[in-house]
Amino acid sequence: MRLHVITTGGTIDVEYSLQGTMVTGPPMIGTLLQRIRTDLEVTIDSVCRKDSRDLDDDDRDLIRHRAETSDTEHVLITHGTDSMTTTAAHLQGVHGKVVVLTGAMQPARMIDSDASFNVGLAVGALQLLPAGIFIAMSGRVFPAGTTIKDCRRGLFIADDGDAP
Amino acid sequence: MRLHVITTGGTIDVEYSLQGTMVTGPPMIGTLLQRIRTDLEVTIDSVCRKDSRDLDDDDRDLIRHRAETSDTEHVLITHGTDSMTTTAAHLQGVHGKVVVLTGAMQPARMIDSDASFNVGLAVGALQLLPAGIFIAMSGRVFPAGTTIKDCRRGLFIADDGDAP
Amino acid sequence: MRLHVITTGGTIDVEYSLQGTMVTGPPMIGTLLQRIRTDLEVTIDSVCRKDSRDLDDDDRDLIRHRAETSDTEHVLITHGTDSMTTTAAHLQGVHGKVVVLTGAMQPARMIDSDASFNVGLAVGALQLLPAGIFIAMSGRVFPAGTTIKDCRRGLFIADDGDAP
Amino acid sequence: MRLHVITTGGTIDVEYSLQGTMVTGPPMIGTLLQRIRTDLEVTIDSVCRKDSRDLDDDDRDLIRHRAETSDTEHVLITHGTDSMTTTAAHLQGVHGKVVVLTGAMQPARMIDSDASFNVGLAVGALQLLPAGIFIAMSGRVFPAGTTIKDCRRGLFIADDGDAP
Repeated sequence: MRLHVITTGGTIDVEYSLQGTMVTGPPMIGTLLQRIRTDLEVTIDSVCRKDSRDLDDDDRDLIRHRAETSDTEHVLITHGTDSMTTTAAHLQGVHGKVVVLTGAMQPARMIDSDASFNVGLAVGALQLLPAGIFIAMSGRVFPAGTTIKDCRRGLFIADDGDAP
Repeated sequence: MRLHVITTGGTIDVEYSLQGTMVTGPPMIGTLLQRIRTDLEVTIDSVCRKDSRDLDDDDRDLIRHRAETSDTEHVLITHGTDSMTTTAAHLQGVHGKVVVLTGAMQPARMIDSDASFNVGLAVGALQLLPAGIFIAMSGRVFPAGTTIKDCRRGLFIADDGDAP
Repeated sequence: MRLHVITTGGTIDVEYSLQGTMVTGPPMIGTLLQRIRTDLEVTIDSVCRKDSRDLDDDDRDLIRHRAETSDTEHVLITHGTDSMTTTAAHLQGVHGKVVVLTGAMQPARMIDSDASFNVGLAVGALQLLPAGIFIAMSGRVFPAGTTIKDCRRGLFIADDGDAP
Repeated sequence: MRLHVITTGGTIDVEYSLQGTMVTGPPMIGTLLQRIRTDLEVTIDSVCRKDSRDLDDDDRDLIRHRAETSDTEHVLITHGTDSMTTTAAHLQGVHGKVVVLTGAMQPARMIDSDASFNVGLAVGALQLLPAGIFIAMSGRVFPAGTTIKDCRRGLFIADDGDAP
């Protein structure tokens, strides 16, 4: 299987600066995938490096363009959690691709990060799902439009149409 | 989703003893799952604590019994890699369950372990697969009987019927 | 040797919140010292939990009081780096104690943190130094008043009396 | 301060092989020192890569030769714990150098390793000790000949002349 990874920033890539602030650092997906031995062919494509609260429509158009024009069927997007559902909605209608968004609640550079697990979850989902847009977070795989982030508890839950 | 985890030992649970030897330690799956925030309901069931080269038919009968009598549909088995395919074969015919075996090439207690990724891969696969027996390793999900461990390269590959 | 550890917060104890912000979390010194096997007797005394830019004279009076009234000769203080030299100056004149301040440039909860090394550096220094106030950072041990933080490079250097 | 590091193998450098065995891997001291920001000048000199139970007199002669002919005053030796006291004894009489041996009870590649702490302990000791041969382990600094490894508890203790 070939895998096209689009990185956009978000908590997964956060690092701690010399000035004692958090900044979105270089993508960690390469480091995370080096931990596994695999014969998956992976291409990493860094589209932007933003806190997802700062992503705008131009960013989302670009992410969509890269997904649509990918020469692979399987697209993994690493993304901040705060607007992951917004970007997933923006990708609706991309045809012929399995697109899975994931990210992390704790930076991949932290010991107890959920990043490796989440990327594994997304990679497992990618190869079993039909074409469409999905979010893989909190140990679960959701079709776009069926999940919201429960900010208080820090997890993605099924969206029953009511506010969390 | 409810998840029944059966632990059997293997590299994923290896620790380094005071005597400078490797031993199979307490299961790490609880620690790995604590890193993610999830509302999955997880039961951990420690069946044995062995290097998988030392598992015998009695062990495999017990693992099969626990899977068959589980009160959940989804069963995750953490297992050593050397005989993972043997145990998967032994589980053939378990009905009405999705059973996914996973493990690690590097102990979960090591910084660059593949354990978190692999468990994520298995959890992603579990909720998307039909009933049956599967192996989730090396970034891929294989039906039992269709993969072998390539010991030289340290990864699971599709079994084309020839020796690796 | 008995060791009295005073924790005050700082980068060493930073954690990443559910809201995606950095907060000073519970002290990590206990976790760091559990990694070593030792028969040192350690008492941990959490005085405050602050970014060191927010420490005021009341905090420093309290830190000094705890150091002066400690029933041990050896006092280790974990502290943010930004005002470590200020607190060290404030402790001048504490009699009959070896006091070493240390901290970290990367939170102890991060994989590549300098926290364990720095605490080791401080513990090594504590048992070899005469009474006085010292800073152990950047692989070096400085008497209070002889070092400044070079904020641009993120390290403590000998203070030659000029600005860095 | 300039620092000459001699690596010899031991638990600190152990890695887990594809075959599920422990082997002494490439020295980890460079990785450990990269975690700190420092202006120490460090030279790393890999003399051998052995479990310290397998070190012989030829190895120890070579280690001694490298320490004696070092162009720095401060020599740090990373070493397995099982024969660390034997090598320390073998180095007695090296003149004009501060030599500190350290190592780890858990490989530096493990999450909860004591390696970073121990190297910090040794670096702190190195700059405060007079010329001589020392062991820095278990949170303490011992002159050679005054400590033994308590194998049951996994720590170095003061040698009171009786068996542990």
